[in-house]
Amino acid sequence: MAKEKENVKGLTAKKEQDIAEWYSQVCLKSEVADYAPVKGCYIIRPLGYAIWQNIQDHFNRCLKYRDVKNAYFPLFIPESFFHKEAQHAEGFSPEVAWIANKEEGQERLAIRPTSETIMYDSYSRWIRSWRDLPLRINQWANVVRWETEATKLFLRSREFLWQEGHCVYETESECDAEVKLFLEEYKNLAEELLAMPVIMGRKTDKEKFAGANYTLTVEAFMPDGKALQVGTSHNLGQRFGQAFGISFLGKDELSHTPWQSSWGFSTRLIGAMILLHSDNKGLVLPPKLAPNKVVIVPIIFDKMRDEILAKADEIREVLSEYDPIIDDREGYSPGWKFNEWELKGVPFRIEIGPKDLEAKQAVMVRRDTGEKQFIKIADIKPIIAEQIEIMQKDMFKKAKKHMDDSIVFAKDWESFTSVVENKKMAKVHFCGETGCEDEIKDKTAGVKSRCIPLGDEAAPDGSKCFHCGKSAKYNVYFSRAY
Amino acid sequence: MAKEKENVKGLTAKKEQDIAEWYSQVCLKSEVADYAPVKGCYIIRPLGYAIWQNIQDHFNRCLKYRDVKNAYFPLFIPESFFHKEAQHAEGFSPEVAWIANKEEGQERLAIRPTSETIMYDSYSRWIRSWRDLPLRINQWANVVRWETEATKLFLRSREFLWQEGHCVYETESECDAEVKLFLEEYKNLAEELLAMPVIMGRKTDKEKFAGANYTLTVEAFMPDGKALQVGTSHNLGQRFGQAFGISFLGKDELSHTPWQSSWGFSTRLIGAMILLHSDNKGLVLPPKLAPNKVVIVPIIFDKMRDEILAKADEIREVLSEYDPIIDDREGYSPGWKFNEWELKGVPFRIEIGPKDLEAKQAVMVRRDTGEKQFIKIADIKPIIAEQIEIMQKDMFKKAKKHMDDSIVFAKDWESFTSVVENKKMAKVHFCGETGCEDEIKDKTAGVKSRCIPLGDEAAPDGSKCFHCGKSAKYNVYFSRAY
Repeated sequence: MAKEKENVKGLTAKKEQDIAEWYSQVCLKSEVADYAPVKGCYIIRPLGYAIWQNIQDHFNRCLKYRDVKNAYFPLFIPESFFHKEAQHAEGFSPEVAWIANKEEGQERLAIRPTSETIMYDSYSRWIRSWRDLPLRINQWANVVRWETEATKLFLRSREFLWQEGHCVYETESECDAEVKLFLEEYKNLAEELLAMPVIMGRKTDKEKFAGANYTLTVEAFMPDGKALQVGTSHNLGQRFGQAFGISFLGKDELSHTPWQSSWGFSTRLIGAMILLHSDNKGLVLPPKLAPNKVVIVPIIFDKMRDEILAKADEIREVLSEYDPIIDDREGYSPGWKFNEWELKGVPFRIEIGPKDLEAKQAVMVRRDTGEKQFIKIADIKPIIAEQIEIMQKDMFKKAKKHMDDSIVFAKDWESFTSVVENKKMAKVHFCGETGCEDEIKDKTAGVKSRCIPLGDEAAPDGSKCFHCGKSAKYNVYFSRAY
Repeated sequence: MAKEKENVKGLTAKKEQDIAEWYSQVCLKSEVADYAPVKGCYIIRPLGYAIWQNIQDHFNRCLKYRDVKNAYFPLFIPESFFHKEAQHAEGFSPEVAWIANKEEGQERLAIRPTSETIMYDSYSRWIRSWRDLPLRINQWANVVRWETEATKLFLRSREFLWQEGHCVYETESECDAEVKLFLEEYKNLAEELLAMPVIMGRKTDKEKFAGANYTLTVEAFMPDGKALQVGTSHNLGQRFGQAFGISFLGKDELSHTPWQSSWGFSTRLIGAMILLHSDNKGLVLPPKLAPNKVVIVPIIFDKMRDEILAKADEIREVLSEYDPIIDDREGYSPGWKFNEWELKGVPFRIEIGPKDLEAKQAVMVRRDTGEKQFIKIADIKPIIAEQIEIMQKDMFKKAKKHMDDSIVFAKDWESFTSVVENKKMAKVHFCGETGCEDEIKDKTAGVKSRCIPLGDEAAPDGSKCFHCGKSAKYNVYFSRAY
């Protein structure tokens, strides 16, 4: 029991008291991530990476269904490429990392902060006629943005992993339709796999992507009242096409500039999921996302030792499609093991001891609620299959209720500040002006618009902006954000 | 037919006449890869990336079976880390790329050329006791080596994709066993998925990895008489453990330095596969590796048009597990389509026209041999399943015969030079001295030792080095290499 004594593994911070410290402890102690010895960077440990791989697998199936092909473009981008599209250059220039190695006659190279420019240069050579369209390419890659704010595991770092989809269409309407389609795929991913409800919306002009006509977003709502942008989908219009000389010969035998979109989500999604679901015992993973859905802990006494281990092994075999862990380590008490697997977020724990064996039953404990029940070993597979569905739905419902309860209409500045101070998200009527939005951010030390909710975009006729009092254009959600 | 006329898509170079130009054309025209507008870099296009994903899927299954976990470490490595292990620093320093961004008081950052140092720094914090071992972690990542020689698609570039496994063991014998084990997994991958025979061997001291006790390698043999290293597995000894302060408390309650290994293969494997199998019509893909194993080309006339398209669709449905492509594009002749899919290496083509439909049959054409046969549509699924196995085996056998026939024993310098000039691989008795090997390389303008073949390592008693005449230590293969 030496190990047991030396390690106090549990969390010492409480989610409701100090969410930043709690979050950092959950990530470190559950071993999903670790800080790196390089400023601004972090390490995705095996448990974190297995979660990322499950997200990738889910989304790769979706890409295949949508006829999007994966590809890989260079990490390095020539400086001149950034300057071809002015808004894009301006948006990214403060946070670009550059390579020191330079050869005579060669220009400076950036490390990709995003790949529009390097990809669209190729597109200009690959696209010739309407037969080549739509072109739909996705890239899984690391990107670098030279952040100066403090590093937050998964949430803010100089390097992160992401996917970036880059599509080209003949017409604006096709482009619009698919910008929306991939946003909906993000919503499905968040809700179905991560049990994370999201709001679909459009960014205000102030918050849209550098170089986009408009940006759609999915926003998740965190327990501390902050929103977290988990995916965006941009209609880039014809601006990059013009800048990079992309054109196609139409069915009309004339040359046209195509319409383009780009869309992405990153490892930040993992951070959002952890913030949303985890508790003071550690990580809580939605069962469909969890790499190991079950841990089997045999309760070993001298009596019936071999029989219990054999039964545990048999259960593992039966549940093999759920990648169960069997924890038969010696020198650790059952209680210590329970704590460890709770810390690591395994959705279901199966305990089996001598009495259970005699009664042909086992104890099943659900990670999110702590609910315990005796189950018949003979029925264990259908029970786990059913419980996975139930737990996944319950986790989503709980988060959805919190999100819905947290959206509060604020008719004026006073109620707006009170809503935001109470860790809620304010729905307001807003003029849509960037200047007005700048003032709001300054006055509140950082409250920003999240989005204009899709399907509920127009402010009521005659309504006034909650801040400046001018005629309101949109319904907009505002909150603090990660 | 405008498109048909404007594009001469076929290869203009011949494999047997100008393999370098032929190889470049195969890669570009089949659209597996493209040159990038950044010196030393290239683009992996969707067909190339789908091949890489199939390789990843195969190897991820193997990693799971071997209890190796995937993780992700930062792209950036602090300069001081390189200098902790002297041989490693010396080996990599000429080809490291550096970041220009630098903050006060922070050291210079390299872009990873390989991740030993950044990973082992973490290992020193993660490993405490024998209970933490073996630790087996793999990373899929991009790496950068600032090459100055000309770029060759997949084969030599400044950035490439790879996997790097990094394991830690209590004992030397465990480490030795798994260094060999992962080499065998590389052999399995190459032979079973890529139909590429390889030689397993140990590198001479001159050619081993910077910082390793010894390096094992799998070497493939190309049609132009050059070898190509497709994977290496290193026993790093305790050198990195000492340099990075990795230690563990043993069962004996004493502190020990563990043994470490690292092993990797890269996207170069794709280049080797293309060089080996492809022909003057374009890409030839082993069917188990091919993303789309079948292309269905309906031969459309006005007569029975709808029936033929319906049958083609029905066949696609039946063969869905092989991801068949259906080419029902209008405005392209069947012949043009056949050429296109041959260029892209689809293993099996199914043609179906009015006469076939009446006879309830189709024509099946095998990509590697061009062999045509009529098959009953009712039996199409088992036939394709069987043909995949046959073609995969035939491709391997053909390559194996070429490799075996190309290994020729050379007893002295004269026969050695003649063997190498005749595009074969020379097997020699060799002294093992780095100085002697340097001279051989100089005299031949680049012929290098490939490996000491496993299982046939010791030179016969009393034999002399084919070059210097001193006492021979090993049997060694020599050839030119990519």
